Amino acid sequence: MDYSLLSQAPLFKGLTADNIVTILSTVPHRVKKFQSGSMISQSGEPVNSLIVVISGVVKGEMVDYTGRVIKIEDIPAPGALAAAFMFGDRNRFPVNVIAVSDGELLLIEKPDFLKLLMRNDIILVNFMDMISNRSQFLSEKIKFLNFKTIKGKLAHYILQKAGKDKLSLKLDKTQNDLADFFGVARPSVARALREMEEEGYIEAKGKYIKLIDKKGLADLTIE
Amino acid sequence: MDYSLLSQAPLFKGLTADNIVTILSTVPHRVKKFQSGSMISQSGEPVNSLIVVISGVVKGEMVDYTGRVIKIEDIPAPGALAAAFMFGDRNRFPVNVIAVSDGELLLIEKPDFLKLLMRNDIILVNFMDMISNRSQFLSEKIKFLNFKTIKGKLAHYILQKAGKDKLSLKLDKTQNDLADFFGVARPSVARALREMEEEGYIEAKGKYIKLIDKKGLADLTIE
Repeated sequence: MDYSLLSQAPLFKGLTADNIVTILSTVPHRVKKFQSGSMISQSGEPVNSLIVVISGVVKGEMVDYTGRVIKIEDIPAPGALAAAFMFGDRNRFPVNVIAVSDGELLLIEKPDFLKLLMRNDIILVNFMDMISNRSQFLSEKIKFLNFKTIKGKLAHYILQKAGKDKLSLKLDKTQNDLADFFGVARPSVARALREMEEEGYIEAKGKYIKLIDKKGLADLTIE
Repeated sequence: MDYSLLSQAPLFKGLTADNIVTILSTVPHRVKKFQSGSMISQSGEPVNSLIVVISGVVKGEMVDYTGRVIKIEDIPAPGALAAAFMFGDRNRFPVNVIAVSDGELLLIEKPDFLKLLMRNDIILVNFMDMISNRSQFLSEKIKFLNFKTIKGKLAHYILQKAGKDKLSLKLDKTQNDLADFFGVARPSVARALREMEEEGYIEAKGKYIKLIDKKGLADLTIE
């Protein structure tokens, strides 16, 4: 197993490859190969282990009621699978997980993982950071979904970035990232930005945004 | 301090009042009184402690860019404040927290709380359940926000409850709860249900729903 990649996993942040070898030697674990195209877990199956992609890439996928397949996200090594679903009341895979390439998984059964958490405060904090980050990302996403128009979402994003005092800023997401985050098509983001410029709310130059009409932007968020 | 109420807190689930007394005697903690109307914490302040409402009620509140106050939720005793924000990268209160009544808080500083988690597997699992439940609730909520129409949201909710085989079911949420969860007004939920009945998708009798046209319901989810 390539421990150098594992040391880049959020769960093992702050630990060296040597630390990880030592820690894993004290806890029962398995390494499981998977082949491109294979089903790794099915939506609704219980999540009984910590699962980290050691090599290769898997993806999350949903099938809706009309049979449409909706891709949720790619998870490349060294990402964890369904970490926010190991605990809690809905302790099941929320989506199907399918291998995009050949690769390997590291598995630690839940009772063994619990022992590991209680013995190692770095891994404990890392794991709580991971599942808290998931909540925090989702909270943020919900804020944006609640704005009805794309201009409202963008205005909120810009005002939030600017804070109380700043009148100019640099976007830290590409238009593609923003579109993904808002759950809209990329051309809609480009169009909304253009219109907000034409209507005199902002001036945009690449990633640099100047706030021209802060009050107007605030009004856009409640349209 | 009334430990019997504390034994109903999700963090202390499975522990008796006596257990809790013993556990708290081993860890530094504070009890802080608050008065109705006082500000308990401000949006953006770091979350440096576990905070449990021991008595009384507090509420989360947001002020938007136009100065509108938006109430987020009431948190009565024995709920925890911002548990999903104690760890992770955005380790700050996401909203203002304001006292709705007089009451008391239990506070355990983060380093002391970490020690507690490593010493007590019940509290460790309870805490991970709490923050995972938050993620799971938010994931679910996002699913519903993504459906554009209220009929789409309801159709998804009904199909999800029914699963593969069932053709009738009992709603486990009131129309009020559904409206809150979908982020829409209650009369809109009542109207959508009525229309879905008139259009022949379902039959509704109070909380009991019969699925008449499952294929049609599935189509509603992608309108």
